[in-house]
Parts: sequence; structure tokens; C-alpha cells
Amino acid sequence: MATTPMCTEWQFSGNEAAKEAAAAALGAYTSKLMALCDPNGKPILPPSNKAVETSNSAEKAVVKVILSGTGNAYAPSIGLPLAKSAVAEYLNRDLPKKLTAADVFMTVGCKRAIDLAVDILAKPKANVLLPRPGFPWDVVRCIYKKLEVRYYDFIPEQNFEIDFESVKKVTDKNTFAIFIINPHNPNGNTYSEAHLKQLAELAKELSIMVVSDEVFRWTVFGNNPFVPMGKFSSIVPVVTLGSLSKGWNVPGWRTGWLALHDLDGVFRNTKILQAANEFLQINAKPPTVIQAAMPDILERTPKHFFHERGSFLKHKVDIGYSKVKHIPGLTCYMKPEACTFLWTKLDISCFADIEDDQDFCRKLAMEENLVVLPGIAFRQKNWLRHSIDMETQTVEDAFERLKSFCERHSAERGASLKNVNGVN
Amino acid sequence: MATTPMCTEWQFSGNEAAKEAAAAALGAYTSKLMALCDPNGKPILPPSNKAVETSNSAEKAVVKVILSGTGNAYAPSIGLPLAKSAVAEYLNRDLPKKLTAADVFMTVGCKRAIDLAVDILAKPKANVLLPRPGFPWDVVRCIYKKLEVRYYDFIPEQNFEIDFESVKKVTDKNTFAIFIINPHNPNGNTYSEAHLKQLAELAKELSIMVVSDEVFRWTVFGNNPFVPMGKFSSIVPVVTLGSLSKGWNVPGWRTGWLALHDLDGVFRNTKILQAANEFLQINAKPPTVIQAAMPDILERTPKHFFHERGSFLKHKVDIGYSKVKHIPGLTCYMKPEACTFLWTKLDISCFADIEDDQDFCRKLAMEENLVVLPGIAFRQKNWLRHSIDMETQTVEDAFERLKSFCERHSAERGASLKNVNGVN
Repeated sequence: MATTPMCTEWQFSGNEAAKEAAAAALGAYTSKLMALCDPNGKPILPPSNKAVETSNSAEKAVVKVILSGTGNAYAPSIGLPLAKSAVAEYLNRDLPKKLTAADVFMTVGCKRAIDLAVDILAKPKANVLLPRPGFPWDVVRCIYKKLEVRYYDFIPEQNFEIDFESVKKVTDKNTFAIFIINPHNPNGNTYSEAHLKQLAELAKELSIMVVSDEVFRWTVFGNNPFVPMGKFSSIVPVVTLGSLSKGWNVPGWRTGWLALHDLDGVFRNTKILQAANEFLQINAKPPTVIQAAMPDILERTPKHFFHERGSFLKHKVDIGYSKVKHIPGLTCYMKPEACTFLWTKLDISCFADIEDDQDFCRKLAMEENLVVLPGIAFRQKNWLRHSIDMETQTVEDAFERLKSFCERHSAERGASLKNVNGVN
Repeated sequence: MATTPMCTEWQFSGNEAAKEAAAAALGAYTSKLMALCDPNGKPILPPSNKAVETSNSAEKAVVKVILSGTGNAYAPSIGLPLAKSAVAEYLNRDLPKKLTAADVFMTVGCKRAIDLAVDILAKPKANVLLPRPGFPWDVVRCIYKKLEVRYYDFIPEQNFEIDFESVKKVTDKNTFAIFIINPHNPNGNTYSEAHLKQLAELAKELSIMVVSDEVFRWTVFGNNPFVPMGKFSSIVPVVTLGSLSKGWNVPGWRTGWLALHDLDGVFRNTKILQAANEFLQINAKPPTVIQAAMPDILERTPKHFFHERGSFLKHKVDIGYSKVKHIPGLTCYMKPEACTFLWTKLDISCFADIEDDQDFCRKLAMEENLVVLPGIAFRQKNWLRHSIDMETQTVEDAFERLKSFCERHSAERGASLKNVNGVN
């Protein structure tokens, strides 16, 4: 070799700013468990979907944009005007106080809407209230922005309603927002109108805003209808986050939004509107090719598309819920009314050789090629999140494997084996 | 009204972290000038393209993905494996030292590839060398990451080659990288193989890496062929940035990449590979729907698509360049060989009532509805960047308006008017 590069002391090295945040991401937990599965063993569950179905109307809308070339150019950083209008009109269907296009910002999926909400609000010494359990992306972003996170709790026995006492307990003068998820992932419930109104009044009393992640609003199949938090924006300033991802099954289209339900110009006066503009000016934009299709996607997707998806999910939830009832050591407090998961409490004392939720999930992956996420990924130790978004036979297989795993590791079985051993 | 919201002292306000960075973005300059134009006057130039043409093969590739549903799901944060492979194979056509798919990271446009390069390298007290003039996004991101920026210069009289003396002068032990743009925006030149090799050797001597933004590599129409910096990755570690945006006319597709041309495992040893993974884990991903089409887009776009685009641009450059020759106060040092702009030096002393490049551009917008960007946006005062990417008649109109504006404001004309006035 002509060069002797090993002698060079290069003046650069990797920045570790994202390290801690990346470790908290859901993907980090999933990849670790996937890596424990045996590729030569039973089919790995949940299966990685190669071709996810969306609505034919949505496909046609995007194809039209591609072939007409109307989505090839840059869009403004805050979003394409017609996409912003389409989102505002869509959300307005359920709102007494109407949004305008100027209140809506287009983002690279709902994750970037969360980033935007966190980034425009983050201040030194400020803190934010997050749900426990909750979708970890909020946490990821707060870690990255060095923003203090405080957790509030739920009451599992009361359909996982927000424990308002726990909210009050952790709020102080540096708290600026409460983040909610509705429908809630992973609890699987939707909040009633009365509960959301109470929350709005509490937030007003505490002088904080409500940031509502409503990405799962199209996958509701229980008795409670979905009510948007924006309905109470005459009481408290509300930020709504959403995206096409979950409702249309197209997370790969990377198109979401953030809507500011301003209360008497509060967002304008507190410079939040300005911060949102500036943040988006220097950050990633969602594809114009999807933004340009937004009016057609939002207006033309037939209701039966969501109904069918809801029925599909309800059926799978029914299967999973009835199976879990007969599995020792797991308790499902509420049959989910929305989203695509079961959320169960793990009673470690029921098991002979399981240390905690992470240990449970590791062993389950190794022994059964089944990936279930540990509660700790959602900041709640010794709970489990089970996907039910699979075909009937597959979801049955998944819960059969789970049952067989739990029985194999149960303390009772361990105890009886011990007794037998003791006798011998 | 039942509520008295004005009495509430809300505990939140907007974060100003992005403020300074947003002001430096090219979009900020463009919007300010656009706002000065008269919507009821002459057509505003350059026209905002409503429907930009791309290659039919690229359109077909994306339509195929949409209709087959293979781009609907999340992609891994580092990119879809088949897109990473396709980019690696494409870049390998010109490289002696081959890349693998693992060396490629998919990003939301080339802008996010720049962010990635800056973010994974940024360290307290570190500094980075940027071209002056240069594409301002690098600067934007450095401001946001609070990274010190130092500028190196060019030699306009030598086809805008990099002034290596200026590079040496600003480098110290805290310098970790030199960013180059090749073909260069706004200079409009492509670097020769010999010049790039010299740069590689200099960077090695200084123990810094080279980050090469090659987004304009498909819009080359001069005599110098495009040579990728990666060709010299056996001398120095090279990071290549690229995207579909400029070559395929699809910035709205938001799909770019960053490739690490590792030298004897330097990127792995310095944790840069790890930092890239972590950064992407917690940041925005490009649309799967385009990523899944990457193999077809890169392999099937016929060469004549780029040739035709090159001929189109060359023709417009010829028009603009020959017109500028007859405009007092402007000097174009080199007829561009690439990209979509003319870059001219402004001699303020030739004008009667123009203060500087910004003043020139403001008055030009107000009087002629013509948007030309001031050099200061590219960190070089009293230069101008003129777009030539328009239809023949439109580009002629643009340079006619420019000429008429310059003549109207010329010092000579001012002087003769003064004389006349003096006589009266």
C-alpha cells in the first residue's frame, strides 16, 4: 500500500448526542428481540408485512399526482397550502371552533409532529407531562432536547382514564404542557367527551396546554366514539398531532400534521406560531408527492374502508383477549376499544424463572420466535404489549405460543416439579 | 363568554433555538424578495413551476410501488435495504474502492444528508470548513448545532478552483472536516480529477475528512466530466451526499443519501458509523414509497434524459452568459459548466444608488418583479446568483429586465443626469 493511513490521527469522532435517545426508541427494543429469534425456527411473529394494503382511493390519489407531475417540486417548509387546507377542513368536521389552513403544519409523519411540539416548546428548566405508559417517541425527543420529563398515571380499573390526581402531583410552575394519546397506545381506550372536558379544565387551572396525539383516531372499534381534544379549545390551548400512518396503513408515506387550536391568540402571543415556522424552515419536509394528494385522500377515502379495518381489528382483539384470560400470570384490565395491541400486566410471582418484563420478552423471543414488547419500553415495568394486527390463524398461533410459554415457566408448574423432585 | 382566558398566565412560550438558523436559510431570502414583487405587475420571474417534468421511468417506478403496496410500511431508520444497495451499486460505477449497502444511509433529501453529516460530527469546540460562497444549508445546520464555521475561498480567475492556501490558513487542531460542493453551487464549475486528488492529499495532511455534496452531478454540461470525491477514498475518509432532487427534478420526493467511504475502518473506529445509526434512529426517514422505487429509478432512467436536461441548461446558460457580458456592473468570471445558475460579481461603484447586493436585489424585485439572490445568502457579499432554469423566452425576458435595471441605476447615467442638472 502506498499510503499508511493508520499513522494518521484523524481529527474527528462521532457525536454521542443521539445515543441515549436512540436507546429509548421502540425500534431499539424491537431489533434486540428480533435478533434473539431463530430465523431457521418457527415463523417469526408478528410477521413483517411485505405489502400492506391501503385504500384504493388513496393509491389513486397519489398515482394521479405522480403522473401529473404536481408533486415534484419543493413544498413550502410549513407545508403545501392545499394540504394544509385539506387537513384543516377534515379536522373541522368535529370542531365547534374552526381551524384555518394557517393553523396546520405538515410534518414527516406524526413522529415529526411530536418533535415539532417538543422542539418549539423546549426551554431550559421546563418540564413536560407524559403518560405512563405512553408511546416512547415523546420520551426519545425529550431526552434528545434535554427536557425534563414527568409522568402521570392511569386508573386501569376505570377503563384507563387519566389519574388527574397524579397530574396535579407532578405539575409545578415549570410545567408547560400535558401530552395525551387518544385513542391511547398501548392502553387501547378512547377518552369520553366528559373526561376530555375535565382534562381541559384541569389544564386551564394549571396554565398548561394540551398536546393530543390522535394518530389512532381511525382505528376505533369499541363503544366510545372518538372525540378530538380540539373540541375543548375554547377552554385551553390545544395542539393536535395526526398522520395518515395508522388510519390508512401507510407509515411509509411519511405524512403527518400538527394543528394549533389557538385560544384568543395565545400561540401567537407566546411566539409558538413563530417557533413552529422557524423549526420547520430548517427541518425535514414531508414528500410533496403525498401532500399534493391529501385533499383526495382525506375526502375520497370511503367510510367502509375504516369500518372494515375496525372490524378486522375488533375480531383479532376478541381472539387475543379471550385467549389471554386463560393464560396464567397475565391480566388484561380492559378489552381494547382502539389501536392494534393488547396491553397486559405481568405478575412476576406467577413465574418460576422470569425476572421481569424484559427477561420475559427475551426468553419468549428465544423459545417461541414471538416478539412481544416489554412495558419498560413504554416506561411501565412489568407490563407487556402484544400485537393483534395479524390474520386470524396467525394471531391464534401467537397467543397459543404465549400460553405454552407461560405455562412452561409458571411457578406452579415449577412448584409441582419441585414437589415431585422432592418426593423422589 | 363563559371563560376569561386573557386572565390566564400560560406557562409556555416558543423556543427560539431555530431563529438565527432559519434566518440564514435560502428560503428566508427568497420569501423576502418575493414579498417585494407586485402580484399585479409583470409576471414574477423565475416562475414558480407548477408541474415539473421528471423521467417517465422514474414515474413508472413509483406508480408500480404505490399500486403494489410495497412502499406502505415503515422502512428501517437507516433506509430500506434494497434502496441502500441500489445507491451503493450506482455510486460504485465510478469508484475503484467499492461501497456496500451498509455504507449507505437513506435521508430525507440531500438537506437531511447534510444535517446528518453535521450532527454526527458536531463536538464542542470543533470547527468545520465550508466553502465561501456555498450552499447555505450547511451554515444553517451549523448555526443550529452551535458548531464553529470557518470559510475557505476560491480563485475565480482559475475556474473557481479551491484556494488551498485559504484552506490551510483557517485549519487548526479542532478542524474535523472540509465540506465541498461538486459540481459547485453557485460557482457552476466541476472539479478536475487532479484538483480533487490534490484536495484529498491536503485533507490527509491536515487529518480531516472530506464531505462532498454531489447533488448536482447529473446537471453537468461543460467540458470537465464529473468525478466523484469517493474516487480518492484510499487517501482520505470521504463522505458523499446526494439525492434524486436535482438530477431527476424531484426535490418534492424528499429522497437522498449519505455514503461513508471508509478508509481502513476509520469511520467505525471513530464511532461515526454508530453516531449515524443513532441519529437516524431518532430522526425523520425518507418516504418508503420512493425508497422502494430506487432500484428502478437509478437503473432504468435512460441516459438521454440527463443529456436533454444538460442541453436545455447549457442553452440557457449560453443565453444568460452572453447577455450579462453587456450589462454594466456585473462580471461573470466563468461560463458555468454545471448546475442551474449564473454567479456574477457586482461592482457597486458602477451604480448611482445601490448600496450593496441586498439593496440591489430588493430594488430589482420591486422594480422588475425579478428575483435574483444576493451573494450574502451564500456568505459572499456583493455577488449575485441568477437562475437560468427557465424557458428560452423567459430567460431572455429575465436578463432583459436585469439589463434595463442596471442601466437605469448606473453611475454613468447618474453622472450624466447630474451634469445636465448642473447645466440647468
